Amino acid sequence: MKIAMIGLGKMGFNLALNLKDNNYDVVVYNRTKSKVDEAVKQGLLGSGSLEEMTSMLGERKVIWLMITAGNIVDDVIDKLVPLLNEHDIIIDGGNSHYEDSVKRFRRLEEIGIDFVDVGTSGGISGARYGACTMIGAKKEVFSYIEPIFKDICVENGYMRTGENGTGHFVKMVHNGIEYAMMQAIGEGFEILKNSDFALNYKDIAQVWCNGSVIRGWLMDLTRSMFEKDKQLDGIKDIIHSSGEGLWTVLEALKLRVPAPAITNSLYKRFESEQEESFSAKVVAALRNEFGGHKVEKK
Amino acid sequence: MKIAMIGLGKMGFNLALNLKDNNYDVVVYNRTKSKVDEAVKQGLLGSGSLEEMTSMLGERKVIWLMITAGNIVDDVIDKLVPLLNEHDIIIDGGNSHYEDSVKRFRRLEEIGIDFVDVGTSGGISGARYGACTMIGAKKEVFSYIEPIFKDICVENGYMRTGENGTGHFVKMVHNGIEYAMMQAIGEGFEILKNSDFALNYKDIAQVWCNGSVIRGWLMDLTRSMFEKDKQLDGIKDIIHSSGEGLWTVLEALKLRVPAPAITNSLYKRFESEQEESFSAKVVAALRNEFGGHKVEKK
Repeated sequence: MKIAMIGLGKMGFNLALNLKDNNYDVVVYNRTKSKVDEAVKQGLLGSGSLEEMTSMLGERKVIWLMITAGNIVDDVIDKLVPLLNEHDIIIDGGNSHYEDSVKRFRRLEEIGIDFVDVGTSGGISGARYGACTMIGAKKEVFSYIEPIFKDICVENGYMRTGENGTGHFVKMVHNGIEYAMMQAIGEGFEILKNSDFALNYKDIAQVWCNGSVIRGWLMDLTRSMFEKDKQLDGIKDIIHSSGEGLWTVLEALKLRVPAPAITNSLYKRFESEQEESFSAKVVAALRNEFGGHKVEKK
Repeated sequence: MKIAMIGLGKMGFNLALNLKDNNYDVVVYNRTKSKVDEAVKQGLLGSGSLEEMTSMLGERKVIWLMITAGNIVDDVIDKLVPLLNEHDIIIDGGNSHYEDSVKRFRRLEEIGIDFVDVGTSGGISGARYGACTMIGAKKEVFSYIEPIFKDICVENGYMRTGENGTGHFVKMVHNGIEYAMMQAIGEGFEILKNSDFALNYKDIAQVWCNGSVIRGWLMDLTRSMFEKDKQLDGIKDIIHSSGEGLWTVLEALKLRVPAPAITNSLYKRFESEQEESFSAKVVAALRNEFGGHKVEKK
């Protein structure tokens, strides 16, 4: 079976290699040509344009988008549409907002193109060797592409979450949970670090990986990061975020669901990105106003 | 090797069976005799008193306490001391506060009895088939008892965390992380539940167990709980807590470590145990005072 992959970032490139290992002919396209050349060296089929890419596919084309969420997804879809036939399938495997995916599904359904939203988890190693995918699709479309997911995911690591939009919705919530789980781990190790005991974080993470209640992949990664840098001296305390945590909190607000752990994890990231905290300056100045308490002058 | 287990609750009973499976002669003692009778039926060696129990042990006695944290641990230690010889070893495998463990270690050290604090994780199934243990002990004492932990824990699932107190300290922080991880999962599923999509929580937990970033034992348990009761209709929304989360937050306060995710997870538990929220009544009444906003009358 032939399949096209648009977008050769870390996720797309590794998914393409994963597909190749599972005996798919993978036609790749990327805006920056050097990435395509690199892919060709690794046995993927290069294409220089979307026209060339679609011409290399067979009946009922399957095209996987692995590109940054936002307007660019619509741009690429707009360019693809004239090149596709009825019931060709566009898979968006990126981190699009689920409401955008519902809109795209409806728009494409009107012109007979099938659309599938796929939340892809498991990081880069998962993309390469066995991912976890949440798939929002009509049943017939899901049946057609199910073998692909069976091949590239770990055992029991894919599911049709439901109608279109659910793939990205469930993936968004997954990422919200991930934010708070990571914050939990962060807070725990900061407490360990501040104690008077001499503790080895890597060894503690290691023992927690084996048989504890909090064992899991995030703890495996915690162990390996402390193995590389035992006090994390090499990095700054700044946490960026790419949107899904914010979307989860906005969704919680929309649905009036109290989500303090996820929300605070997001705020912690925003805080970490600030040069200085204006709210902290306000509070410090107010303490000085009413009680003459010390402020730290610049 | 002979070893004594005091306390045949769910954890102690299963640890005793685990030890027996690993060819230890396990002498058990429990305040309620019926538990001892039950243990004898399963091949453990019963004793009717601490005197009888200690008389059944060999040279350098090893006595594992698996009892509720608090004064009762001191009571049992006080009763044991006259029955022990120099360098006999008392292991406290329960959830004692680490500061109590440091005090007990110092008190026992003065009279030549060795004390070890062990944080035991992995739940009931871990106790039975392979636990995760964090061990605070002097190096020589640790060397003497290490084979026991090697036998009853999963591979790489035990470690000497450091000096006395660290076993229970690290376990306390483990439980704090656990609180926030569980809260993260709870919030995520509440968002899923409140969405307009029809979603199957068990299937979603299942796919998250396989290859996702948030995979781990807590997600395995999430899957199995939704398998038993797919909407959790059978239980109330009340979360009890047994102390370690509170201790972790108190420790964070003592060390001035900001721990919003763990703290909010604890508050969520307190809130869930309230018949009604007085703070909510205050806020509702204040809204009414200044703006005539509706209050819900009893």
